[in-house]
Parts: sequence; C-alpha cells; structure tokens
Amino acid sequence: MDVFALAAMRMDHTNPTRPVPPTTVRRLSTYYRVLGAVHSEGQANVSSETLAVLTGFTAAQVRRDLAYFGSFGKRGVGYAVSALRQRLASILGIDRGWRIGLVGVGNLGRALMAYPGFNNQGFEVVAAFDSDAAVIGSTVNGTRVLSAGDLAHAVRVDRIDMVIVTVPARAAQKVVDQAVAAGVRAILNFAPTQLRVPAHVQLSNVDLAVEVEYLSYSLAV
Amino acid sequence: MDVFALAAMRMDHTNPTRPVPPTTVRRLSTYYRVLGAVHSEGQANVSSETLAVLTGFTAAQVRRDLAYFGSFGKRGVGYAVSALRQRLASILGIDRGWRIGLVGVGNLGRALMAYPGFNNQGFEVVAAFDSDAAVIGSTVNGTRVLSAGDLAHAVRVDRIDMVIVTVPARAAQKVVDQAVAAGVRAILNFAPTQLRVPAHVQLSNVDLAVEVEYLSYSLAV
Repeated sequence: MDVFALAAMRMDHTNPTRPVPPTTVRRLSTYYRVLGAVHSEGQANVSSETLAVLTGFTAAQVRRDLAYFGSFGKRGVGYAVSALRQRLASILGIDRGWRIGLVGVGNLGRALMAYPGFNNQGFEVVAAFDSDAAVIGSTVNGTRVLSAGDLAHAVRVDRIDMVIVTVPARAAQKVVDQAVAAGVRAILNFAPTQLRVPAHVQLSNVDLAVEVEYLSYSLAV
Repeated sequence: MDVFALAAMRMDHTNPTRPVPPTTVRRLSTYYRVLGAVHSEGQANVSSETLAVLTGFTAAQVRRDLAYFGSFGKRGVGYAVSALRQRLASILGIDRGWRIGLVGVGNLGRALMAYPGFNNQGFEVVAAFDSDAAVIGSTVNGTRVLSAGDLAHAVRVDRIDMVIVTVPARAAQKVVDQAVAAGVRAILNFAPTQLRVPAHVQLSNVDLAVEVEYLSYSLAV
C-alpha cells in the first residue's frame, strides 16, 4: 500500500484533526505549481529538500505543511510526484471545475481573464460584468461582457460559485451585496477597500501593494 | 516617555533580535492600511482586539506581530494610532520614496500603474518598458513607455530601486537578468514562472492563482 493510501486511511483531508492555517493552504498552491514543473521533467519522486529549494521554504516547513494532510514522504525516496500532485489538486478543490463571475472589466479584470494560471486549473470565468455601456456586449478572452445589473440573474442561471471583484473601491460593496444575495459563497476582492460579508461567505482580499511593501522592507532592513 | 520611544530604545527595528517571518512583514502592510482607516475616523488609540476585527487576524497575533518591532500597546489604552502608523511606514520603508521600473505594459502592467495603493505610499513608477513598437513612446498613467532594450540604461539614469515584471513567462528571466546586471536589488515578479536571481537580490513572486485556490479550498472543505 502506498504512503498516500495509508495516509488517506488515517486522516480524511476534508476533516483534518488540526485546523489548517491559511498560510499553509496558500503554500499548497506553490507546491502544486512546483510539482507540475517537476512532473513535466519526468521525475517520479521528489525530496522535501528539493521542494524547499524550488519553493524557497525550508524542508522542515514542507514536511510540516504536507503532514497536515496526511502526506508523508518515504525516507530516502521522498514524495511520489504524480500522486502528491493529484492529492493537492483534490485538497485545493481545483479538480472539480469552479465557475467564476468577474465584475469589473478594466485592465486588472482583463489581465485576470487572460491569466494562464486560471484556465488550466479548474477555474473558468463563465461570465464577466461591467457598468460601462461601451464594454457591455463586447467579448473579452472569449467571454461575453454582461451588464453589472444582470449579476444576480447570471449567478443563478450560470451557476456561479465564486465572484472576482475588480471594480473601483467605491463600487465594491454593492457588487458583493448583490452577489451574496444571489447565493455566491466565495468572493475574491482586488478593490483596495474593506468589505463586509455574512459569516457563511468566504472573502479573500488581494492587496497588490503588500508584496511591493515586503520588498521595500527587505531593501530597508 | 511614550511607549514607542521607549520601545525604540530597547530594540532597533532595523536589527530585530529575532528573525522576522515574511508572513509577519506582510501583515504589517495590512495593519498599516487598517490604521489609515482608523486614523481618518479620528481615533487616537486602538486596541489589539479592534485591530483583530478589522484585519481578520487574532488579537494575540496582532500583539505578537507588533512586538517583533518593539511596539507594545498600553494596557487599557491600546496602541497610539498615529505613532504606530508612522512607525510601520518607517519599518516597511514606505516613507522614503522607492523608484520603480515596470516591464511589460499589458493589461496587468497598466492595472498596476494605475493602482491607487501604490501612488500615495512612496512607490513611484518612474519608467515603464515594453517590447511592442506600438506601445513604445506612448504615455500610460503619466509615464512614458520606453523600449525594453533601454532597461539597463534607464535603471542607472533614473536610479530605479525595484523592477516589477509583468511580461509573459517566457520573457521574464531575460528581463530579470538585465535588471540585476544593471544593479537592481529587488524584483517583484507576476509572470507565472520560477526565476533565478543572485543571493543579494530580493525576489518576490505574486501568484494570482493562489488566492483563488485558497477560496476553492475553503469551499471544498
């Protein structure tokens, strides 16, 4: 029995015995990406030390993160690349086809619609929305742009799971309220503002200035 | 003597006695943003509990993060909003005017050039670069777009501290090599690829798919 089957018997990843920190979940995305590169080079196994070099995390961190989900590398052999990659895809839920609505077809919205990282990982922008009459009705990256006023209707008809908000800060809360009222359970917000959502809705904020400030800190130290 | 002056005597933030985890530095950006909102509402003091509610972190996490830099709230009073905000700006180095070169004036590059979070926080895009003759010579958000071939020259002449890479993955390493050879010490990479830089150069990668995958994980659990 391989190490993953064994681990699966011991721990159901959908119900880990310890709460998983958000930073660990975000590192899983990085492991998933790096394992893809290792996989495409034809390697069958990879050590936590190699994963550390490729990700920039420590080997101890790699082992600790993967242990949350019951994945333990074999001593002297490492992790089975293909199995671990599939397992991470399953844990991250990117093997099941999420349907995304994107609101705000400006530069950032267009950049995200064309982002190569989304399309091949189970995320599909099934509808885009804008309030600008000049943009409504146009097609961006193969997706037709609807009126922002049609959001609630489209969430139901197109079975949208997740909404990406790339509107200006002042318009963001209204968009989120409409999406939540229509049944959306996950919001990814790029607008530089604090949004309010009910407890049953997952909200993630992407602050594009954080990484620039992190570099600034690194230079200043 | 106020708590911050006292703390400054006890610990030089540019040389903390313990190594500061990158995740803590990134949370400082969030504290800085939230303190700005609290400040604009006219509040003089704020508790770690309020900062916890506003940021989504725990109060214990807030206190632990700020303690790295010798900032301790006064019991029953909390943190002095204005002083803490200035201190975070200083720690993050965003009070000293970083000069940024942005390479790749596509949708993402344009979105970043117009990002309101950059302009008022000490980050100035002083030059932009592209390889497309149709874009070179145009002005985007008040900044003239130069030929990508002029990057090394402009880094020296315009005293560029930091380069933001928003080119396609296949072009990213070449851009980074040129920037590093010209003396740039900090790279912020949005291209979905692993880049190599010498040890003296700070590299941060922004993976726009990570947050979508985090939401996907949250929905799947």
